[in-house]
Amino acid sequence: MRVIFKQEMQQLGDDLTRMSRQVATAIERATAALETADLTLAEQVIDADRRIDELERQLDEQGISLLARQGPVATDLRIVVSGLRLSATLERMGDLARHVAYVARGRYPENPTPGPMREILIKMARQATLVSQQVTQLLETRDLALAASIEADDDVLDQLHRESFQVILDDDVPMTRQQLVDAVLLGRYLERFGDHGVSVARRISYLVTGDLTNEVVNPAEQEAHHD
Amino acid sequence: MRVIFKQEMQQLGDDLTRMSRQVATAIERATAALETADLTLAEQVIDADRRIDELERQLDEQGISLLARQGPVATDLRIVVSGLRLSATLERMGDLARHVAYVARGRYPENPTPGPMREILIKMARQATLVSQQVTQLLETRDLALAASIEADDDVLDQLHRESFQVILDDDVPMTRQQLVDAVLLGRYLERFGDHGVSVARRISYLVTGDLTNEVVNPAEQEAHHD
Repeated sequence: MRVIFKQEMQQLGDDLTRMSRQVATAIERATAALETADLTLAEQVIDADRRIDELERQLDEQGISLLARQGPVATDLRIVVSGLRLSATLERMGDLARHVAYVARGRYPENPTPGPMREILIKMARQATLVSQQVTQLLETRDLALAASIEADDDVLDQLHRESFQVILDDDVPMTRQQLVDAVLLGRYLERFGDHGVSVARRISYLVTGDLTNEVVNPAEQEAHHD
Repeated sequence: MRVIFKQEMQQLGDDLTRMSRQVATAIERATAALETADLTLAEQVIDADRRIDELERQLDEQGISLLARQGPVATDLRIVVSGLRLSATLERMGDLARHVAYVARGRYPENPTPGPMREILIKMARQATLVSQQVTQLLETRDLALAASIEADDDVLDQLHRESFQVILDDDVPMTRQQLVDAVLLGRYLERFGDHGVSVARRISYLVTGDLTNEVVNPAEQEAHHD
């Protein structure tokens, strides 16, 4: 019984890592689609999100089945419940990558990030990709130094997001209405993506260290656009 | 043992309803703050969100403790796990109400929704309030007719959101950059708020009927801004 339980816990961890890897691929491709106006890549991200959603459903069923059959307590119970939450957060990150891909697809054959916001949006997308890749590594290694690095990378993302509003709100920078809308929404999607990455990192740190003081998603994001 | 278990399940349901009621109050006040440029109301929403976050933490601990001590299976297990998910979704709705309040606070003493977008944004906020009030009622009554009504109200919200982009993207409608940014973000917050309401409604329907076919959040929202 105990051996099967350990195997199942291992499986849960492996599946979360696999899901995270798919999310990292999604945001990486969505970033490339933004950079190069690549319709095929954008479509791939959109299609692949169904598989990420399916993985979430599988993980949920695994987790619930494990709870029902094994009745874990203490740390094991928290790991299983956290697994359910992590899969929900990763699913949401996948959705956000898909939203970025929608913008690329919606502008095709034009470049989805033309004009003065191009550089900053591409930087944000690359930073989000970095966060996502590190989340996958963290799931694989449980190396807490990575958790700190994810927070630092998300700070860079938040800073870029604040800078984006300086450009967006500057009447002297010529932008079409569509460019303004895309810049505001892409900024929001990418910033949220990073916040979710931080939330995953904090939850894993909590599982490793037992400390949940910083678990709530990055409060800095909450006021970024309006203060 | 069984009596205590039933009481604890009841408590979980009551606490979710209480949390949902606080979220409904938050979005109702945020809506009023948008309409009347009321700084006090906006601050109340922002402050009250801490209590909503605290309720989520309490619900989590209750749920995990219940799983550990009672080891529920089958339907009971799914109810507890769903309770954890519902509290996370309600917490997110509270955050979105707070984001709306930030816009009102950020523009004070000016009206946060001046100009051509005023009518449509107020309509959206009222519609989001309606969704939230019905979610609370649904949690209280488990009346499945309400679940359908929540979906219908969210459709109205999505339709208003689409209309908002027609105005935002129309160069003939004069708007400042700040008004454009606020309109895009308020639209996004309110649309997401409604989607989460639908997600709560579907999860409750699932618990009542056992049918999870429609559980994934409203696919219509995914392409609204970019198609």
